[in-house]
Amino acid sequence: MQALRDAITSGRLAPGTRLPAYRALAVDLGLARNTVGEAYAELVAEGWLTARQGSGTRVAPRATPLPAAEDRAHRSAPPVRSPAYDFMPTSPDASAFPRSAWLTSARRALNSAPNDAFGVGDPRGRIELRTALTEYLARARGVRTAPHRIVVCAGFAHALRILGAVLGGEVGATVAVESYGLAFHRSLLTGAGLRTVPLAVDADGARTAELGVLDAGAVLLTPAHQFPTGGPLSARRRTGAVDWARANGSVVLEDDYDGEFRYDREPVGAVQGLDPDRVIYLGSTSKSLSPALRLGWLALPDSLVDDVLAVKGARELWTGVFDQLTLADFIACGAYDRHVRLMRRTYRRRRDRLVAVLAERAPHIEVSGIAAGLHAVLDLPPGTEHDTVRAARRRGLALAGLGDFRHPDSPMPPRDGLVIGFGAPPDHAFNGALQALCEALPPAL
Amino acid sequence: MQALRDAITSGRLAPGTRLPAYRALAVDLGLARNTVGEAYAELVAEGWLTARQGSGTRVAPRATPLPAAEDRAHRSAPPVRSPAYDFMPTSPDASAFPRSAWLTSARRALNSAPNDAFGVGDPRGRIELRTALTEYLARARGVRTAPHRIVVCAGFAHALRILGAVLGGEVGATVAVESYGLAFHRSLLTGAGLRTVPLAVDADGARTAELGVLDAGAVLLTPAHQFPTGGPLSARRRTGAVDWARANGSVVLEDDYDGEFRYDREPVGAVQGLDPDRVIYLGSTSKSLSPALRLGWLALPDSLVDDVLAVKGARELWTGVFDQLTLADFIACGAYDRHVRLMRRTYRRRRDRLVAVLAERAPHIEVSGIAAGLHAVLDLPPGTEHDTVRAARRRGLALAGLGDFRHPDSPMPPRDGLVIGFGAPPDHAFNGALQALCEALPPAL
Repeated sequence: MQALRDAITSGRLAPGTRLPAYRALAVDLGLARNTVGEAYAELVAEGWLTARQGSGTRVAPRATPLPAAEDRAHRSAPPVRSPAYDFMPTSPDASAFPRSAWLTSARRALNSAPNDAFGVGDPRGRIELRTALTEYLARARGVRTAPHRIVVCAGFAHALRILGAVLGGEVGATVAVESYGLAFHRSLLTGAGLRTVPLAVDADGARTAELGVLDAGAVLLTPAHQFPTGGPLSARRRTGAVDWARANGSVVLEDDYDGEFRYDREPVGAVQGLDPDRVIYLGSTSKSLSPALRLGWLALPDSLVDDVLAVKGARELWTGVFDQLTLADFIACGAYDRHVRLMRRTYRRRRDRLVAVLAERAPHIEVSGIAAGLHAVLDLPPGTEHDTVRAARRRGLALAGLGDFRHPDSPMPPRDGLVIGFGAPPDHAFNGALQALCEALPPAL
Repeated sequence: MQALRDAITSGRLAPGTRLPAYRALAVDLGLARNTVGEAYAELVAEGWLTARQGSGTRVAPRATPLPAAEDRAHRSAPPVRSPAYDFMPTSPDASAFPRSAWLTSARRALNSAPNDAFGVGDPRGRIELRTALTEYLARARGVRTAPHRIVVCAGFAHALRILGAVLGGEVGATVAVESYGLAFHRSLLTGAGLRTVPLAVDADGARTAELGVLDAGAVLLTPAHQFPTGGPLSARRRTGAVDWARANGSVVLEDDYDGEFRYDREPVGAVQGLDPDRVIYLGSTSKSLSPALRLGWLALPDSLVDDVLAVKGARELWTGVFDQLTLADFIACGAYDRHVRLMRRTYRRRRDRLVAVLAERAPHIEVSGIAAGLHAVLDLPPGTEHDTVRAARRRGLALAGLGDFRHPDSPMPPRDGLVIGFGAPPDHAFNGALQALCEALPPAL
């Protein structure tokens, strides 16, 4: 698209020139329709193109450009090239958002909201949502909290950013993190001046027994479904983490990013229930509903509520009140539970299909971490990860290798594998995506 | 409410005790209904109270409290005591939010949104909103920008916080600010490690001619309606600010917080139109629609877009996509213009009423800054501000004195006055509020 923009802005495409329909161009360039459509829309909005029913899209009579050259801004922020198939492990199925149920809740919430909902609100978030979350998290995740201990924020990243600033001042300079996890999350902590030290993980999750030797003020864990390796934290290690926190005056940060999606037995409750004063629970709607909502929450120990609010900024209620009120109604009326149940079935079906196709087409590849969540780990022969990821990307697959998640200081030997998110591809594209994936896998030795 | 909570949590109120209806209690305590209602709701949610149709609200059979004492958290975060009348200059009329028109746009926007709207989005914000803003800001405010130069954020505070971090690295350590302004805005800049130096203001706005001697890398201005003193920046001073920025390689931060509300002539266009490469335009819906939306925008010079996105966080789309799409539709379908016109009439009527009542009841008090916006300045005899503010607060009026906005290093002699926001009180309460205000004013000498 950059080439197209340059051709137009530089005048190489003469005014009046008719461009192909964006759908056709998308096919020609092998780009997603939305990518091309947005590029067209932006060029039209900026006056470079004119779109008219019937006469199609044409290069506009030269509009006076802005003082600064358009193209600079665009080279600096290149449009994302959407892959044919998205296997990134952090994406849910964007096509499954329950639009009409959400709108029903939005209407009910907005019509019944008190006037003060439209004024400057409580920095903790709307009481309606904090009340609904208190009930839901207790019922669905075993979280023990209360509305005044919950702080609503703009998703997990916002919550971790806030905690980074709080812990930076509170518990000293070091946070233990799982040796495999999102570099993006580690960077939010280091960005707050904290040091992260890796904690080894295995099939039973993080080896919390090793916390004792790490001298950390806090530990960030994904107990329900270790991200990305996929093991649930074992019962002994859960109590181990809490005992460690009690003994050291430390805190556990519980990232419950996909705790609702467990397939083969009842969801494992949150570690927070073991000690609400030592465990900070972090949740969001990014996996359960949509990352576009930018809605997350912290269930905090009493002693940290004020510090969190101080960092968050009392005058900066980052999350729009309407989505908060809508989610409160969405939870209270049962629509949230229904949606989670529906998606659990959908994702489970996809997981089973992934496992079946691999068993048939690539029996030599071991699949793990599939008891829960939206992603699986495909173990690869040592030394083959890098080439396999590149081969997959050449086939238009967006996916990640285990190496992308490894803590640079990890004491564990590198493990070769693919992290396959099966949430994002819409149903109609799922089989095609699996075929393309199998073609990218290394053959049996 | 703290007393009530303590009485219950400490067991001084026995289980089963019936409490008065919160409306009644609100009247007794002289608190806003919402304050009492929320406190009740919170106590119910926490299990301290039970609310049952017919049998009213009662103290619950002792629920097992959380490990940490409830009351600590509450003493630390005391409930805000809502005043009888809100004259704070930063609050619009929360009761005037166009609920049904907003819901209509929300339905249209959500139903027509592409699936990718529910995935992780463009950190600049949705293209639909940036396109709508480009057209609207050009038409209504004379802003010259383009969708790729706009970054959507969670309101003005978020935008200023981001710019503080960008400027901290970009243009050195000092930002000139108006000698009267919100301390909260100054603190966002100093929080980013910047130093603020005061620029004198008078009836023509900030004395931009004095920028030359300040050695600042940027200046934060409220050109449409100086906050709080109320003067519009004169034409000569507008060009003066831009010329200074060009000559020094500095930037102008234009806070257009209430530019749409001008009463006696056409709105003054934004300074940004004079030089889109030297002026950063900041706008939001906080005055025009509601601060609860948490929606704002930056119209940036090309050269700063990447830096702003880097600070904002590419993975942290702070603003919910639904409100962005809804606002885009709300602007495109003309509902935004209609609402602004309606509120302009409403606020103008209130301003005229304020002026009329003061002319009758307190002719010795001069009113200024009334050509635009949601607030006016009432000049007071030297030395009387502090006592007048206290007298007003005793009468249940929430209002601010000019002193609350004065830069600590301001070279100007202190000026005594009240800053009266006439936006917040709902229509039915406005006359009562004005009467209470007049009673609090010092008598003629």
